[in-house]
Amino acid sequence: LLFEVRYSDLAGRIGKITTPSGTFETPAFIPVIHPVSQSVDINFFKKLGFEAVITNAYITLKQCGDLAREKGIHKIINFDGPIMTDSGGYQVLEYGSIEPEPSYIAQFENDIKSDICVPLDKPTGYGLRYDVAERYVNETIKNSQETLNLIKSNNDRNSVWVGPVQGAEHLDLVKRSAGQLDEMGYDMLALGSPVQLLESYEFAILADMIAALKSKVMSKPLHLFGAGHPLTIPLAVALGCDTFDSASYILYARDNRYMHANGTSRLDKLSYLACQCPICINMTVKEFIQLEYKERIDKLAKHNLYVLRGEVLSVKQAIMEGRLWEYVGQKARAHPKLMEAFKLFLNYKYLEDGTPVFKKKAIFFMETIDQYRPEASRIRKIFDSFRTNKKKIILFPDTQVSPFYSSHEYHKLSSKFSDYQICAYNPFIGIIPAEISDIYPAAHNLISKRKLNVNSAKDYPTFVSSFEKFLSHSYFDDVIVVADEFMQGIVHQTNLEFKNLRIIEYSDDVIEQI
Amino acid sequence: LLFEVRYSDLAGRIGKITTPSGTFETPAFIPVIHPVSQSVDINFFKKLGFEAVITNAYITLKQCGDLAREKGIHKIINFDGPIMTDSGGYQVLEYGSIEPEPSYIAQFENDIKSDICVPLDKPTGYGLRYDVAERYVNETIKNSQETLNLIKSNNDRNSVWVGPVQGAEHLDLVKRSAGQLDEMGYDMLALGSPVQLLESYEFAILADMIAALKSKVMSKPLHLFGAGHPLTIPLAVALGCDTFDSASYILYARDNRYMHANGTSRLDKLSYLACQCPICINMTVKEFIQLEYKERIDKLAKHNLYVLRGEVLSVKQAIMEGRLWEYVGQKARAHPKLMEAFKLFLNYKYLEDGTPVFKKKAIFFMETIDQYRPEASRIRKIFDSFRTNKKKIILFPDTQVSPFYSSHEYHKLSSKFSDYQICAYNPFIGIIPAEISDIYPAAHNLISKRKLNVNSAKDYPTFVSSFEKFLSHSYFDDVIVVADEFMQGIVHQTNLEFKNLRIIEYSDDVIEQI
Repeated sequence: LLFEVRYSDLAGRIGKITTPSGTFETPAFIPVIHPVSQSVDINFFKKLGFEAVITNAYITLKQCGDLAREKGIHKIINFDGPIMTDSGGYQVLEYGSIEPEPSYIAQFENDIKSDICVPLDKPTGYGLRYDVAERYVNETIKNSQETLNLIKSNNDRNSVWVGPVQGAEHLDLVKRSAGQLDEMGYDMLALGSPVQLLESYEFAILADMIAALKSKVMSKPLHLFGAGHPLTIPLAVALGCDTFDSASYILYARDNRYMHANGTSRLDKLSYLACQCPICINMTVKEFIQLEYKERIDKLAKHNLYVLRGEVLSVKQAIMEGRLWEYVGQKARAHPKLMEAFKLFLNYKYLEDGTPVFKKKAIFFMETIDQYRPEASRIRKIFDSFRTNKKKIILFPDTQVSPFYSSHEYHKLSSKFSDYQICAYNPFIGIIPAEISDIYPAAHNLISKRKLNVNSAKDYPTFVSSFEKFLSHSYFDDVIVVADEFMQGIVHQTNLEFKNLRIIEYSDDVIEQI
Repeated sequence: LLFEVRYSDLAGRIGKITTPSGTFETPAFIPVIHPVSQSVDINFFKKLGFEAVITNAYITLKQCGDLAREKGIHKIINFDGPIMTDSGGYQVLEYGSIEPEPSYIAQFENDIKSDICVPLDKPTGYGLRYDVAERYVNETIKNSQETLNLIKSNNDRNSVWVGPVQGAEHLDLVKRSAGQLDEMGYDMLALGSPVQLLESYEFAILADMIAALKSKVMSKPLHLFGAGHPLTIPLAVALGCDTFDSASYILYARDNRYMHANGTSRLDKLSYLACQCPICINMTVKEFIQLEYKERIDKLAKHNLYVLRGEVLSVKQAIMEGRLWEYVGQKARAHPKLMEAFKLFLNYKYLEDGTPVFKKKAIFFMETIDQYRPEASRIRKIFDSFRTNKKKIILFPDTQVSPFYSSHEYHKLSSKFSDYQICAYNPFIGIIPAEISDIYPAAHNLISKRKLNVNSAKDYPTFVSSFEKFLSHSYFDDVIVVADEFMQGIVHQTNLEFKNLRIIEYSDDVIEQI
C-alpha cells in the first residue's frame, strides 16, 4: 500500500507514504536540498526528524548529471531516506534556454533513483490569462502522459510518480487536470507552484485551488509545491495537502527573515526572540544580528527549520486531538488574508468526510463561523430527519448539564409537559430533540456564553433553517418557545404561524411559571 | 524611580522595577522557589533569564527562620537577584493553627532582606459570601496599615512593599481595597489569589477583577498572585498586570501536565511534542513517559518553564509591535472561556490610555469585536468632532489605496463633486472625512474582505452611531451614499431622513454613473 491513513480531521490526515527508500509520516514538510551547493548540513535535517527531502532534477542534471546517474541521488546529497525530485519545470520556464524533452527528464529521475518523481510540468504561477494557463495545463498533461508511457515499462524500483496539477486561479483547469492525471493512473498528485500567490498572501485563492482539486480527487496523497510560509501549513493540511516542500528556510534567512508561529519578521525589527529552539535559547536579538554573516544565515536557517518542524507537529497534534478546526481558526487571526481563507471553509463540504463522527474531546463554539464546522452540519442533518407523532412541542435553551435529557430542567419539563415533544436548542447546532440529545457533538461542546451584541437571525442562518424545518416537518398545533436572549432575536425575525404559539422569556424559574 | 515604563500597548507595559538587589524587566513571570525543598535547580532559572523569583516568608519562618535571619534569604535560596516574598497568608488560612501577627511577619521579611515584600493578607479566593469577603478585606487592610506603620521607620534597604488587594468577584471590595492601599502609600499593588478562579477557567471574572483594580489605580505596578496557567498570561498582561508568580511549572509536572501555548495536556494523552525546547527536541512522547519518575518530573517542570518563558516573551514582542490586541484575540480562540474574557475588553475604557496614538504597523480588523479596539474608539471620537460648512455630502467605501485622499477614486469624486463633503467609510472605524483620512489608523489597517453573511446594523453599533452622528452634526441638504454590501445592510436598518437622499449601489464604475 502506497498511502495509509491512520487518523484524520477535516481533510487533514495522519498517514504514511511508502517509497523505495522507506516510509515517512504525513503531513510532512519536505525541505528543499540543493544537489551541489547545499548550505545547511544534511545531517541537521535528519536530526530534526525530517524524514524526506526534495531536490531538483533539472539542476542536478545541469550541474552533475553523469555523477548523479553513476552514484544515485542518495549518495549525491548524502541522504538515505526518501528523496523526491522536482522536474525543474519552474527553472526551465524561468532560466532555461532550451526546453528539455519530458521523457529525457523522466528517464533521468529514474536513473538517479529518485523515490518520488514529478514529470516535467509547465507551472501556471498566478495571474496568467485563461488561454495561456490552459495552454500550460495542456502541455503539462501531454508531458505527464508521455512520462507515464515511458516509465510504465521502466519503473522496477517502484518509485512514486506524482501528477502535476496546474491551472492556478482558473479552478476549472485545476479540476480538469486533476481528473485527467488521476485517470491516467498517477498514485499521487501535486498542486503547482503557489509561490507568487503566497508571496502576496492570497491564501483564499490557494484555498479554493486546493478545494477544487480535492473535489475531483479525494483520497490520493496530495503534494503542495513551494509552501514554506508558516501560515500556509495549517491551512494546506486542513484542506487536504499531505506533503509540501519549500526552500523558504534558507531563502528567508538570506533575506534576514525570522520565522515564527504567526509568520515572519525581519530579524532587526524584533525586540525579543520568543522562541525556545536551541538556536534562540541562548541568544538575544542583538547577539544574533552581530553574528558573522555566514554563521548568522546558517543559524537563522536552522531556527526557521525548527519553526517549520514545530508548525507541522502542532498541526499533527491538532489532528490527533480532533481540534484542527480550532487550530486553523486560531491561526486565521494571524492575518486578515488568512481569515478570508478560513471563512471559505463553509463552502467546502468535503471537509466533513475526514472529520470523525465521534471525538474524545468536546468541540468549541465561539464565533458565528463555528456553526459551519463539519460536526455541526452533520448533526443538523440527523436532527432534520427526526420525526415525532406528538402534536405539541416545547423548545428550551440547551443546558449546562449534558446530554440535555439528563438535566434537571428536562426532568421538570417532561413531568409537566408529558404529551409534548421536548427539544433543546443551541445557536450553533439548531434544534435538539431530547430523545437523541446525546449524539455527538450535541452533548460534547463548549460555548462562549457572553455575546457581544444580541446576534440576529442573519448571523445564524443555519439555526433559522434548522428551526423552520423542524417545526414544519411534523404537525404541531401547540408550540411553546422558552426564549433566551438569542432565541428572542431569532423569533422576532422569523415568520412563525401556529394556532397556539407561546413565546416565554427565559428565567431561572421559568418552568414553574409556564 | 521604582517603576519605569518604556513602552505600552493596551494596558500591557514593558517596564523596569528597581529593587535593592537590582532591576528586572516587566512583564515578568516570577517563579515560586521553595526555601528548603526546591526541586528544579535555582541555576536553571537564571539560565532561562528569569530575573526575579518569589518565595514564601511564612514557610521560610517555619522551616528555617533563624538561619534565614542570619544569612538572609538570598543565601538561603542561592539567588542574588531580586527576591519577592509572599507573606504566606494563604498558607496560614489553609494549614495554620495559630495566626501570626502581621508585624511579626513584616519584621521577618525585613530581617531576611526580601526585596519585594507583601504584608500578611487574608485571601478571599473565590465564592465567599459578600460579608465574609468584606471581613477578609478589612482584616487585610488593617494588617497592611500596621505593616506600613512598622516598616516606615525601618526600611533602610528600600525594599518594595506591595499592598495586597483582596475582594475576589465582589468588585466594589476590590476597588475599595485598591484605593485604600494606594492612599496608604504602597508603591505597588498585588491582586489576590485567583488560583481557584483560574482552575475553573473563570477568566471573565478575573478580567473584571483586574479592570476594577486598574480603574482605581492605573500607574503603579501590579502583581497578580498565582497566575501560572499559560492562557492567563496574555490576558493578565493586556489588562495591566506587570508581574505574576506561580509554582504551576512544578505542580503541573507532578500531575503529569505538559504546558503548551494553548494550555496544558496530560503527557500521556499527547501524540507529538510540538515543542522546540531543549528538553523536547530530542525526545518522543513515549520516551518522555518512560523516564524514571524523578527525572520525568524534573524535565517536565523544565519544559513547563520554557513554555512560560516563551509566553512572556511573545507577549512582550506583541507589545513592542503594537499587536497585543491581535495576540490576545488569537489566544482567546484557545478556549470559549478565554473568549468570554476577551469580549469584555470593550467595557474597559482604560485600555485606550496605554495604547500608542501611532503605531509602526497596520492594525488588523477581522471580526466584529475589533470595532472596539482602542485605536478605533479613539479615531471615532476625532471624526465625531469633525465639522464642515458644506451642505452636501457623499459617502464612499474606503479604498485599497490609503490614505483615502490619495486614491484614484477620491480624485475622481472631488473633481465631479467639488462642493460636496467627501467621506470614506469603514465598518470598524466609521465615517472618515477625506481631509483627515491620514490619521492613524484610518490609513493603517488591514481588513478581512470576505464577510460570512451580510452583516447587520446590530453587529456594528459603533458604525451606526458614527454614521448617525456624522450626518446630524452638520446640516446636509443633499446626501449621496455609495453603498457596498455592508452599507446596504446598514442603510436598510437605519432611519435616514434627508430631503435629497440617494443610495447608489457600489460598482467598479459607479463614479461615472452617478
